[in-house]
Amino acid sequence: MRHLLDTASLSREDALAILDVAEDMSATQSRQVKKLPTLRGKTVVNLFFEDSTRTRISFEAAAKRLSADVINFAAKGSSVSKGESLQDTAQTLQAMGADAVVIRHGASGAPRTLATSGWITAGVVNAGDGTHEHPTQALLDAFTMRRRRYGGESRGRDLSGYRVAIVGDILHSRVARSNVWLLHTLGADVTLVAPPTLVPQDVSGWPVRVVYDLDEAIANRPDAVMMLRIQLERMRAAYFPTEREYARRWGLGSDRLRALPADSIVMHPGPMNRGLEISADAADSPRSTVLEQVSNGVSVRMAALYLLLAGEREDDMPGHPARAEEER
Amino acid sequence: MRHLLDTASLSREDALAILDVAEDMSATQSRQVKKLPTLRGKTVVNLFFEDSTRTRISFEAAAKRLSADVINFAAKGSSVSKGESLQDTAQTLQAMGADAVVIRHGASGAPRTLATSGWITAGVVNAGDGTHEHPTQALLDAFTMRRRRYGGESRGRDLSGYRVAIVGDILHSRVARSNVWLLHTLGADVTLVAPPTLVPQDVSGWPVRVVYDLDEAIANRPDAVMMLRIQLERMRAAYFPTEREYARRWGLGSDRLRALPADSIVMHPGPMNRGLEISADAADSPRSTVLEQVSNGVSVRMAALYLLLAGEREDDMPGHPARAEEER
Amino acid sequence: MRHLLDTASLSREDALAILDVAEDMSATQSRQVKKLPTLRGKTVVNLFFEDSTRTRISFEAAAKRLSADVINFAAKGSSVSKGESLQDTAQTLQAMGADAVVIRHGASGAPRTLATSGWITAGVVNAGDGTHEHPTQALLDAFTMRRRRYGGESRGRDLSGYRVAIVGDILHSRVARSNVWLLHTLGADVTLVAPPTLVPQDVSGWPVRVVYDLDEAIANRPDAVMMLRIQLERMRAAYFPTEREYARRWGLGSDRLRALPADSIVMHPGPMNRGLEISADAADSPRSTVLEQVSNGVSVRMAALYLLLAGEREDDMPGHPARAEEER
Repeated sequence: MRHLLDTASLSREDALAILDVAEDMSATQSRQVKKLPTLRGKTVVNLFFEDSTRTRISFEAAAKRLSADVINFAAKGSSVSKGESLQDTAQTLQAMGADAVVIRHGASGAPRTLATSGWITAGVVNAGDGTHEHPTQALLDAFTMRRRRYGGESRGRDLSGYRVAIVGDILHSRVARSNVWLLHTLGADVTLVAPPTLVPQDVSGWPVRVVYDLDEAIANRPDAVMMLRIQLERMRAAYFPTEREYARRWGLGSDRLRALPADSIVMHPGPMNRGLEISADAADSPRSTVLEQVSNGVSVRMAALYLLLAGEREDDMPGHPARAEEER
Repeated sequence: MRHLLDTASLSREDALAILDVAEDMSATQSRQVKKLPTLRGKTVVNLFFEDSTRTRISFEAAAKRLSADVINFAAKGSSVSKGESLQDTAQTLQAMGADAVVIRHGASGAPRTLATSGWITAGVVNAGDGTHEHPTQALLDAFTMRRRRYGGESRGRDLSGYRVAIVGDILHSRVARSNVWLLHTLGADVTLVAPPTLVPQDVSGWPVRVVYDLDEAIANRPDAVMMLRIQLERMRAAYFPTEREYARRWGLGSDRLRALPADSIVMHPGPMNRGLEISADAADSPRSTVLEQVSNGVSVRMAALYLLLAGEREDDMPGHPARAEEER
Repeated sequence: MRHLLDTASLSREDALAILDVAEDMSATQSRQVKKLPTLRGKTVVNLFFEDSTRTRISFEAAAKRLSADVINFAAKGSSVSKGESLQDTAQTLQAMGADAVVIRHGASGAPRTLATSGWITAGVVNAGDGTHEHPTQALLDAFTMRRRRYGGESRGRDLSGYRVAIVGDILHSRVARSNVWLLHTLGADVTLVAPPTLVPQDVSGWPVRVVYDLDEAIANRPDAVMMLRIQLERMRAAYFPTEREYARRWGLGSDRLRALPADSIVMHPGPMNRGLEISADAADSPRSTVLEQVSNGVSVRMAALYLLLAGEREDDMPGHPARAEEER
């Protein structure tokens, strides 16, 4: 694997490879083998044009557990904001020795431009671009679903027949888009649930069903309900329901929680607006996978970095990470 | 030890344990053995809701010398400031693998809430909360006093009979509070010296004597005079003396420096306002322990992190850090 | 070597020592030996009073490849900005265990003050001070010229007879000053090219020739043309040409690129204003060394840190870095 830019073009084989390596990574973590020497001497740069402490920290933790050096580059306030081009920034980082660039950017498509322009040879990981994609989020979500469904028997399996309802502001959500494409690739069945004004125009081309009523979606017995985060600053826009109406019609509260099938899970990419898109009892219930998602995020990002940096120089890599010499 | 939240509830035994382990840590540093492998694979998160570069760097240096991975999380500007709760932030950090959370927070009691709410199992270290406590500061102060008094014979000793004058804005000072409780536990005799308007209402319940006149306190021949930092932004408040009056009546200048007993020490938590609460010659005199305090702060924080993270899983720890395999 | 403060006082011998060690560092990098254990247990503090993400990251990468611990201290917003003196900041950092302080400061001379005041014993590296100097930039530039001229036969050689044209805002440029002194020491022949209002008053005392016409300088067949970055915020000042006039008269465009001798190189310290001081085809042409400069910058900074920290305690150092035990 050279880059991880989106899930729309990610093959089923590559998606399963990431999920399976993430299983191995997760296994080493649970055995208190937190530090693997696999990427010692590699440099991972977090190039963040938008603030996102959670995502940055998750990638940082993932890289450090593989013994990579991590350099954080908050592009706000840097020469980038003084007009330096993405090309010059990226080439500079690579010239300093970056083996992988984890990029968060406000413009949809920036990571692909970086990866395909020929500017650099470093591996590129999309950590969220505009309203386009956030592929590691979708991968950690799929990892979480697979684990909850198959437990220790997850390796090699896809999500055929798994039913997922994604609820909220689909229009602006790169998390929703990445999930739609990945879940489709993995054989899951996706329903989008949103106020009519928050459904994108081009949704007719997506492999999904759209409903406007959360209770209807719940009546269809989803295996997973994924609540999207509401950006409070959008609440004032004309196309947006009020806070109270949103919580009442599209929020997951106690009643809807009880109406879900016994083994359905409740997902949220975080950070949650408790009391808005999700109630506190839903967030903290045993069906909530919110913290598993965070934890799995580190495993998935370890897997992605491993596959990208191993792919560059196959013969340098000492075999499968979980079988490599381990540090305790 | 599970957490380090305050000195008010810290037992004499635990306080001495931290001070004695800090002696070992300090000894390894002075032998140029700067890096110990003790916490390899552990992750320490600095969760700072208030800026404090000095305290953050001290914890960062301490954790790195124990080979821990350090992740800095400046909560300003993060999703925390967008309304994410302390609970969600803490649980997220733990799900990412944090073994210890070093927290600085503007609200008194936030570290205790974090530690006792059941949200997380990670060790919590209070790095300063509101006007409540700053326990590692008091521990490094006690370490410094003990070292100056007993030198190489410090291990196991408390501060019985040691006389300390703490001078300045007691009202707002978490440093003063942490010192009062710890010094009392260790058997020292504490006098607070402050303008009447900067003495807290509840001081009558504290194990201290209060005087309003610094010269009187000095006439009582203290072993240590601890000058607190004046927050200049408070100088405009009605209850505060003017800058000139403050320096004249409660500042440690040349005359008062000469009036001190020959072996008394001058302490300051830094950063100093030279010319306000302390004159340059007092700050730079051989009795000043300002830089020893900084240096001892790293040793004390190494000790605290060691005791917290060793306590979590005893059987993982390879014995006493100073006897562990050392890296040069 | 105790410190690296400027190139004006850097001896030919020390300059060549840095360049030659940088060759060794560069060689280990190209053999995929990215991590050397040489500075394990050493702490390098990046003390930046001005933002400069590129320079900070370059020093950070250099220190990490030598296995040093790196602590970043952005002095903006810290107690430094609340009036803490440079003395107290520096002494605090050293008390925390800093072995080297890499300082960027808006005031010319601040690094020298730090190094010579007796406040600290740590090694000091000037990472740019006011309009004074930026010595590691000049060293990486000289390294780049030497490499392009002598390739694998560079070690031990100076730049005798090498002809360099430095073009742009000489008046405000610490890069230009550091290059002038170092290039002179190494035997090169320097021509400054600038609008008359952007030439310093004291240039008559410099070992350079000054011309105001870039085409004249190019006609003199320089081996290297170094384009300085224009600070766009200065463009509004009365003494500054307009953007259009600047590009036309002092910018390196396609015509001038073609007019250069076949083996001349085009240099720029970055970040570039493409279309202003340098055209895109000049920036991306095979004669452009812009990215080599960035890459060489890491090698030169590794060399400087190595020489400074090895110099402090000779007997601790396990011999020459490239011959030390290497980690793959």
